[in-house]
Amino acid sequence: MTSNNFKKILVPVDGSKCSNKALLRSCELVEVFNSKLILLYVAEKSTPVNLLDRKEYMELIRKFGNKTLERATHVVEKKNISCKTILKEGNVVSEIKKVVKSENCDLIIVGNKGLGAVGRFLLGSVSNKLAQHAPCSVLIVK
Amino acid sequence: MTSNNFKKILVPVDGSKCSNKALLRSCELVEVFNSKLILLYVAEKSTPVNLLDRKEYMELIRKFGNKTLERATHVVEKKNISCKTILKEGNVVSEIKKVVKSENCDLIIVGNKGLGAVGRFLLGSVSNKLAQHAPCSVLIVK
Repeated sequence: MTSNNFKKILVPVDGSKCSNKALLRSCELVEVFNSKLILLYVAEKSTPVNLLDRKEYMELIRKFGNKTLERATHVVEKKNISCKTILKEGNVVSEIKKVVKSENCDLIIVGNKGLGAVGRFLLGSVSNKLAQHAPCSVLIVK
Repeated sequence: MTSNNFKKILVPVDGSKCSNKALLRSCELVEVFNSKLILLYVAEKSTPVNLLDRKEYMELIRKFGNKTLERATHVVEKKNISCKTILKEGNVVSEIKKVVKSENCDLIIVGNKGLGAVGRFLLGSVSNKLAQHAPCSVLIVK
């Protein structure tokens, strides 16, 4: 019943302090359970942007996403843990759910709130939605 | 930052299948992190009861609570894990939060939904509320 646990852990990162805390916590679980680790950045598409051209904005967000994934990978590799990184575009919760299914993850680890680079990423509400609707277990790190 | 993790794990139990799954999962974490384990049953006070006298009803719930805690202890002890059990009366979420504080817990492990003995215990909504308002990390087991 509980033998196949935490084989694959998904950590959605957004570069916030809270998401970094979740990342560090996930490293501990990866170590003890010898899990595979996937880091995911979702470039939220549905953001109202007045200042920038939409295309230009998405370019900026993608760049930030790649940088965030790079930094997170660096944190993880310093602990001798290897990981796979994924960059997606779309709705954060939907994309997380899709990756859980396609990658067959057993656990999502998220911070309880997050501050995005441009204030667009409310991990708080993301973690709530995941708590209700995720197809696998969810650890909300405080 | 992440050194003092999961020293004390709280598992609210309600005797449901889902809560038993959470209990088994918690045993694994207790084992790898050498955590202390607390099992909690909250006898919900605010239940509309038409069939039974209130006092009689609470007596019944307390008995069920003690039995549930006994059974959960048995599950845990079979894995050579010792635990502390607590029976509280009141609102489930508030009592869980109080115990987290008084016992200094780092992690709550709950199932994503629960069926109470008399249909009164909706762990589903409890896990959502905890995800939002718990003073420590929360693992929602699916």
